[in-house]
Amino acid sequence: MLTYLSKKKSEINNLFASFLQQVKQDAERINAWGPDTVDRLQEYLSRGKMIRGALVSVGHEMYGGSRGQQSLQVGAAMELFQAAFLIHDDIMDQDLFRRGKPSIHAQYREVLKSQGGASAGQRTEHLADSLGICVGDVALFLAFELLGTLEVPIELLQSLLKLFSRELVYVGFAQMEDVYYGGVEASPTEEQILSLYRYKTGRYTFSLPLMAGGILAEAPSSTLEDLALLGEKMGILFQLKDDELGLFGDAEEVGKPVGSDVISNKKTLYRYYLFQTVQGENRKRVQKLFGSSPIHREDLLFLRSLLTETKVKERVDRLMDTLEQESRRIIAELGVAPEWREKLFQLVEYNRNRGK
Amino acid sequence: MLTYLSKKKSEINNLFASFLQQVKQDAERINAWGPDTVDRLQEYLSRGKMIRGALVSVGHEMYGGSRGQQSLQVGAAMELFQAAFLIHDDIMDQDLFRRGKPSIHAQYREVLKSQGGASAGQRTEHLADSLGICVGDVALFLAFELLGTLEVPIELLQSLLKLFSRELVYVGFAQMEDVYYGGVEASPTEEQILSLYRYKTGRYTFSLPLMAGGILAEAPSSTLEDLALLGEKMGILFQLKDDELGLFGDAEEVGKPVGSDVISNKKTLYRYYLFQTVQGENRKRVQKLFGSSPIHREDLLFLRSLLTETKVKERVDRLMDTLEQESRRIIAELGVAPEWREKLFQLVEYNRNRGK
Repeated sequence: MLTYLSKKKSEINNLFASFLQQVKQDAERINAWGPDTVDRLQEYLSRGKMIRGALVSVGHEMYGGSRGQQSLQVGAAMELFQAAFLIHDDIMDQDLFRRGKPSIHAQYREVLKSQGGASAGQRTEHLADSLGICVGDVALFLAFELLGTLEVPIELLQSLLKLFSRELVYVGFAQMEDVYYGGVEASPTEEQILSLYRYKTGRYTFSLPLMAGGILAEAPSSTLEDLALLGEKMGILFQLKDDELGLFGDAEEVGKPVGSDVISNKKTLYRYYLFQTVQGENRKRVQKLFGSSPIHREDLLFLRSLLTETKVKERVDRLMDTLEQESRRIIAELGVAPEWREKLFQLVEYNRNRGK
Repeated sequence: MLTYLSKKKSEINNLFASFLQQVKQDAERINAWGPDTVDRLQEYLSRGKMIRGALVSVGHEMYGGSRGQQSLQVGAAMELFQAAFLIHDDIMDQDLFRRGKPSIHAQYREVLKSQGGASAGQRTEHLADSLGICVGDVALFLAFELLGTLEVPIELLQSLLKLFSRELVYVGFAQMEDVYYGGVEASPTEEQILSLYRYKTGRYTFSLPLMAGGILAEAPSSTLEDLALLGEKMGILFQLKDDELGLFGDAEEVGKPVGSDVISNKKTLYRYYLFQTVQGENRKRVQKLFGSSPIHREDLLFLRSLLTETKVKERVDRLMDTLEQESRRIIAELGVAPEWREKLFQLVEYNRNRGK
């Protein structure tokens, strides 16, 4: 699966090279921001793993589709949507790093500062955020250009456009919920947390590209429904693993500072179950820990042992087991060739057991 | 023309009512933000003049098109794009009012404050901006859904999607230039100012909807080029008039505080020509005025008389005359029925002589 993904990434990168070259050339007559933005986007895109983009080809090839070039184009659109979301998310979360380098708005902070910064009464940071919002919007429009110029029968084009616009609308609503609970005292219910995982990670990261590939291969609608459900299961599993790594992961392996989810008071399912269970002195200490900075190693060890003692860790582990089993069951019943079944099993295995 | 525009507005509003009703119903299963956002968007849309949306029908009907319903749908998409841009722009410009009521991010400030505001270490204003960015993104996706579900032959659908995505990319680049010069000391050149007016106002507000209507009517590509050029001329004219009203308009008529363009140090063509001309003590006073707040009535009167004395006003008036004449010439040569020629003349007349 890893070889497959990296092959698809290089094919999508090639597609970007020619598409963005053309956009850049056309953009030169607008102003200097045009070509500069295209260059920044291309560099930013090249640093992604492009799993979402590659999953379009997976969904397409496993149903025997013959639209290889079109599925790469849809994959490239998927990666541009993802870039747009990351660019906007990083502004919302005020994250200055992404994919190992400065995030887009952080890049503009540097550019602006090197030119003397904002004029009196204006904030350089706000100006940089504003430029970042524009770049995110531009990435969205370019993604729709890739979708809109697909050479496929009109029924497929319309299905794809409807699928993308509607799922992206839902991602937007899920993101609002995420942003909201990230910024206020109140906490979401278990149902709200799982719904957020379903729409922001599950359907968007897994169901959407698999379904798009299925549409290109003209798979029947019952298959598309199976892929949607599979994506939800795999995505919630992926997100729970992400939460686990945020609490139990090794800093060097995970690649982000230990306890950053605790510091940002991320309203995870672990946190929800923990507050359901813990009482007395421990509860007070936990309440103080979430949202405070810095988190020391002993605080994290305390949290970890508490999550184990209260059986919260076990509870989430069981949920992940269930999601893993359900994913494997759906895959087994998809009716695809053993080669593809194996690839999907590997993806489930990765979502369940990855170290970062 | 005004009757026509208001009739189209009411038809587009009807389309929104049924489309958004459906989206709202589907969104209810995601979370509470879904239906709330749809309601906010619908209310926001209903307060626009919907000139851009109506211009799609103008472009369509004047070339004898028979896709009335589809041109309304494209018009509705146009209005959703415009809503998205306004929502994002108001965050960038930190404008708290739009269309006579609180802007979208300002609405969220109120909502959040009524619920106790952001948690410790977070800013309510930033949280409100973040929610606003999401709503803008959602509006963009809904606009593409309207375009993507158009029932037209595939060649038309692809032409429309390509036209929209590409012109919107260019608006994004123009907006970056606008945001940048709005926030730094440096000033754009005359060429940069006119290019900004061309892409952010001309092609987007006038060329794009007229061309979209022309495509629906299957007008030949030479006609589309004429419409593009007409839109540029009319749009630059519209923007220059906007700048004029910002300096010479009556506060009550214009509907925004006198001198707000001076306070925000908007890098207009008037400002550019003025700094080209004015010297000595006057130059010092002008330099102090732009970007300072508040602007007193005597300051504004000084600026007005200086713009007249230095013949800057006359110079811009002459440019507007030229743009008006060129627009009229292009309209006369479009080969459309007298009824439509007359409507377009009225639109030029409005762009040249409107009081707000």
